[in-house]
Amino acid sequence: MEIKVGILGASGYTGSELVRILFNHPKVKIVYLGSRLNAGRNYQELYPHLALNLCFENKALEELELDLLFLATPHNLSAKIVSQALLKRMKVIDLSADFRLKNPKDYELWYDFTHPNVRLLQDAVYGLCELYKEEIKKANFIANPGCYTTCSILSLYPLFKEKIIDFNSVFIDAKSGVSGAGKSTTINNLFCEVNENIKAYSLASHRHTPEIEEHLAYAAGEKITLQFTPHLIPMQRGILITAYAHLKSNVEEQDIRDIYAKHYQNAKFIRLLPPQSFPQTRWVKSSNFVDINFSIDKRTNRIIVLGAIDNLIKGAAGQAVQNMNLMFDFDEDEGLKFFANL
Amino acid sequence: MEIKVGILGASGYTGSELVRILFNHPKVKIVYLGSRLNAGRNYQELYPHLALNLCFENKALEELELDLLFLATPHNLSAKIVSQALLKRMKVIDLSADFRLKNPKDYELWYDFTHPNVRLLQDAVYGLCELYKEEIKKANFIANPGCYTTCSILSLYPLFKEKIIDFNSVFIDAKSGVSGAGKSTTINNLFCEVNENIKAYSLASHRHTPEIEEHLAYAAGEKITLQFTPHLIPMQRGILITAYAHLKSNVEEQDIRDIYAKHYQNAKFIRLLPPQSFPQTRWVKSSNFVDINFSIDKRTNRIIVLGAIDNLIKGAAGQAVQNMNLMFDFDEDEGLKFFANL
Amino acid sequence: MEIKVGILGASGYTGSELVRILFNHPKVKIVYLGSRLNAGRNYQELYPHLALNLCFENKALEELELDLLFLATPHNLSAKIVSQALLKRMKVIDLSADFRLKNPKDYELWYDFTHPNVRLLQDAVYGLCELYKEEIKKANFIANPGCYTTCSILSLYPLFKEKIIDFNSVFIDAKSGVSGAGKSTTINNLFCEVNENIKAYSLASHRHTPEIEEHLAYAAGEKITLQFTPHLIPMQRGILITAYAHLKSNVEEQDIRDIYAKHYQNAKFIRLLPPQSFPQTRWVKSSNFVDINFSIDKRTNRIIVLGAIDNLIKGAAGQAVQNMNLMFDFDEDEGLKFFANL
Amino acid sequence: MEIKVGILGASGYTGSELVRILFNHPKVKIVYLGSRLNAGRNYQELYPHLALNLCFENKALEELELDLLFLATPHNLSAKIVSQALLKRMKVIDLSADFRLKNPKDYELWYDFTHPNVRLLQDAVYGLCELYKEEIKKANFIANPGCYTTCSILSLYPLFKEKIIDFNSVFIDAKSGVSGAGKSTTINNLFCEVNENIKAYSLASHRHTPEIEEHLAYAAGEKITLQFTPHLIPMQRGILITAYAHLKSNVEEQDIRDIYAKHYQNAKFIRLLPPQSFPQTRWVKSSNFVDINFSIDKRTNRIIVLGAIDNLIKGAAGQAVQNMNLMFDFDEDEGLKFFANL
Repeated sequence: MEIKVGILGASGYTGSELVRILFNHPKVKIVYLGSRLNAGRNYQELYPHLALNLCFENKALEELELDLLFLATPHNLSAKIVSQALLKRMKVIDLSADFRLKNPKDYELWYDFTHPNVRLLQDAVYGLCELYKEEIKKANFIANPGCYTTCSILSLYPLFKEKIIDFNSVFIDAKSGVSGAGKSTTINNLFCEVNENIKAYSLASHRHTPEIEEHLAYAAGEKITLQFTPHLIPMQRGILITAYAHLKSNVEEQDIRDIYAKHYQNAKFIRLLPPQSFPQTRWVKSSNFVDINFSIDKRTNRIIVLGAIDNLIKGAAGQAVQNMNLMFDFDEDEGLKFFANL
Repeated sequence: MEIKVGILGASGYTGSELVRILFNHPKVKIVYLGSRLNAGRNYQELYPHLALNLCFENKALEELELDLLFLATPHNLSAKIVSQALLKRMKVIDLSADFRLKNPKDYELWYDFTHPNVRLLQDAVYGLCELYKEEIKKANFIANPGCYTTCSILSLYPLFKEKIIDFNSVFIDAKSGVSGAGKSTTINNLFCEVNENIKAYSLASHRHTPEIEEHLAYAAGEKITLQFTPHLIPMQRGILITAYAHLKSNVEEQDIRDIYAKHYQNAKFIRLLPPQSFPQTRWVKSSNFVDINFSIDKRTNRIIVLGAIDNLIKGAAGQAVQNMNLMFDFDEDEGLKFFANL
Repeated sequence: MEIKVGILGASGYTGSELVRILFNHPKVKIVYLGSRLNAGRNYQELYPHLALNLCFENKALEELELDLLFLATPHNLSAKIVSQALLKRMKVIDLSADFRLKNPKDYELWYDFTHPNVRLLQDAVYGLCELYKEEIKKANFIANPGCYTTCSILSLYPLFKEKIIDFNSVFIDAKSGVSGAGKSTTINNLFCEVNENIKAYSLASHRHTPEIEEHLAYAAGEKITLQFTPHLIPMQRGILITAYAHLKSNVEEQDIRDIYAKHYQNAKFIRLLPPQSFPQTRWVKSSNFVDINFSIDKRTNRIIVLGAIDNLIKGAAGQAVQNMNLMFDFDEDEGLKFFANL
Repeated sequence: MEIKVGILGASGYTGSELVRILFNHPKVKIVYLGSRLNAGRNYQELYPHLALNLCFENKALEELELDLLFLATPHNLSAKIVSQALLKRMKVIDLSADFRLKNPKDYELWYDFTHPNVRLLQDAVYGLCELYKEEIKKANFIANPGCYTTCSILSLYPLFKEKIIDFNSVFIDAKSGVSGAGKSTTINNLFCEVNENIKAYSLASHRHTPEIEEHLAYAAGEKITLQFTPHLIPMQRGILITAYAHLKSNVEEQDIRDIYAKHYQNAKFIRLLPPQSFPQTRWVKSSNFVDINFSIDKRTNRIIVLGAIDNLIKGAAGQAVQNMNLMFDFDEDEGLKFFANL
């Protein structure tokens, strides 16, 4: 059986990775590539590396006959176009931020945006596969998590769930390659501005902060506040988060290893690295893996947790396909069995 | 049916790419990873990105029971260890340069090396899949071509075969990423020496020159001499060759497009790009494709041909697997159906 | 004595390098920074690395009282604004292409542009300091050479002047960092498009071709036609040219070394590297040097010449300052005595 | 007046930057370049970008007649060779870590090294110019600070001195380019291992930790313990530190700006950036500047401080020259008046 899928926004970096992965997926047939800007142009023209013989089109949603629609569109579009009517006709996976947060006030606070579709916000299932697998399997509508969020939550979840850290002592210092900023033609994204440079951005105000806090709060069972600081580094892909937290009591390294092992025993894409081997982004590059490890600092009684993902794969397109696999009862790693090529 | 393969030299860049590709190949089981240096160590320890639960071993060739042995060893080793006896027990694909040239004198001239196994030199089949498919299918012993060679010969072959250029007017100006130099720890390969830098090397003396000349001479039907200059550029993977030749007569662009199309109509991995779209290494990165295109300069009556490959895939590990597929009658692109991820 | 200078177009990459060099020049005072777009903004706001406490302004040329005006503006502007009247009031160094070519037809052919100021075209002195020093010293109006041109002409000039190569056998295969494309916000200049990639561009049509041909023709004493192909490589700064030519007769390496030494004995910024040490762009990065060396291929009787410059310094801002030094009778290397920092 | 200086270890990255800066310093004459490995070789041979016509030599310290000796040697050498006798004959600036820490036990704890010269340890003046200017002016023997240390201490000093943060709430998440690891030929420093990758290293154990703690403790007036985590990112030069601390009370942004301004009013090389403009390493690249700025997070009542330096200049060679300037009563920025070239 093959399902028919369409993609809106297939010409950005995330969209083109989604196309590449779906193109080789044995259970999927891409039948629609939506783009207002590129309507009429052949896909190969824009992406000569991919032999997909299909044209971009600009159809109304009403015309589409699909099993599944992926929205790889800029924020603030899907909130307008996803509706109960659409969801009756097809499943939808939204890769934008429009349905990620449950509290509409958080959109006002962090996105400066009054959400136009509050009811649907409650219906959307947050597609962090390792934490919400059962809900995802039954879902018609998925809000695909952000890249920093995926890496941060999965790296820290067991520590919150098992309550072994001070919940409000958490700092996440995140570093990302430039593809996270998308294909927008701003001076900031030019090679000569990015290369041989590192900078922090969105200090104390990055929009992934409330998303991370929300899901770690579910794990902790109480509201939490944390510090999140993203940095831009001169590479294309990859996110590394370095997270710090105070240990509540004198817990041993092996205990924590056991906790991670327990929580992620069925998580095909999470790899707890062996002791003293710490995540590097190149080991997850172009793969759907999350590499995690940690170190305990006895001097300060803190734990330092490192997590790495490919922002375009596990942080976007790969996780969307993993969600699709769960929703359609395919093997969870179907079409996603690739490793980093160093 | 699954064949049993072994790899000697699996800890270099080429070797690890070979492991990665074979690991996901549906008809292959890796049963032996040979390494003197790393014997006893687990593969994942060195390559944490790859979940291959196998240890490096250091066995005598006589102990190995394999259908196929890959030699991803440094030059000057396989010339000593490949023998008729070995070839009776298993097929061999040699990724080193030891059996690439037919004329033993060329080894003396270009490699400063007296070939110890001249008879076997004649038996080895040169594994440039697109040109020698039928011989490869019947072969027991393959000399896997060099990276610059693969890109250069495939980019120029139709022009020689159809005799539309002056044979001795050819210049190849080649540019390569650093992984071509392998994993050797020399100052020249350090990040701080490579980054933000370009240099030429092996001026008028690069060892791939006679290999290119030999096979283009077969196509031309006469001896040829050409100019080959490699450069090192600050990227990990990829080779671009820019080749120049004098056109014999006033030939039109479409005629040449037709010639390429004719010669490569069954070549799954060769993509002649559309007019005015010129090869870029990132479009072939991590894939087994060869992208080719050309431009005619009416002012000078010269043709400029551009060809791009991934040096570690089509220029090494990928082509080795393509050779294996042909030798064992698998689909030619089995295990090689991946595209660049930009 | 200090001269008063102004700069039009100080917010591009070339313009900002010009400001940086002039800022530390002991004989210069920057009194005007012209920019339509940034008028009113403080220079440090845009370039926090440089402590120049001066605002961008947008004055009419008539209002300016300067000893020297630098035009670091886009092509097609200076052709409109430079006039005899302006040149009576101040000296001008134009870093754009508008006055580089003597033959107005070349502008039509290569630039698709009908030159509006043909008489002034004849008056402009081509500011290639090492070849035209005496004219430059007396000049009021300098056309500052292009980056590829500077590197190509200086690398090949002695061979043409001494007539030891076949004039029409010359190929120049050039490689440039991305800053050559300026600060324009196009997809092509984005980090994710440039990094880990190499491509050729402007095949058989690059605008620096007629400029190179014109000045090598002066040296040769006859019209010449050559092949010029530029490539873009993933680094910020630096140009390397690899040039090939047929040697007319059996000339020895030392003879050619002597020829270069003779022609460049007073050229402070040209360094003929020792035998077997070939130019690398990092050795000239951020400096005004031109590094040159060559190799003779006895097999093909060709010479391979390598030349390297920093495209923003000797290829633009540095050479402009060198021209200024000559025009105002300062030491030729005043303000330019810096070396690459690896 | 010109002083005569010698450099031991001039062939590493720090050493060659030191040579470059001193070469253009108007008050300095380099008379000795010591290297065991390269003795007899000409400096230009190794560093063709620098026209220093001087040979490496391997003399005994007793033979040297110098005003000042720089030691840019690996750790664990200067502890053995610096002596009171040597210091009677010449001043010494040691760029290694051997005399940076006052407490010999810290060498045992963090360096696994029993210091052989404890008395001299007390005599060495810690050469952090902005904090210890008066001591440096009178010193004969300087321990030049580490790169991470310089950036960390200068970025945080005013906050400790004015006691506006909780002393033990400080996290420093540091990111460095690869030149910090020196020119050692290990697999970890290869281009293909560093490029497109980020990793943390020396978790909870980096040797610069006690150095940072020691000097911030002097400022605070009490012992402090902090968290320090370094990362390696794919660039050549530059360090960015992101530091976090709890604010003791409700202090306003402007108050903190005033504090920084007060403490650094005479610090020529420290630039407190304007509000909302945060340090980027490219703005300090190849310069001796320290760029600092901060943001207050009202949600968490924390301050986030960002500091950037060039690890080879202000973090090593540049600060060594600044120390020399102070010791010999030259202008503090003599020979150091250069800005980043973007």
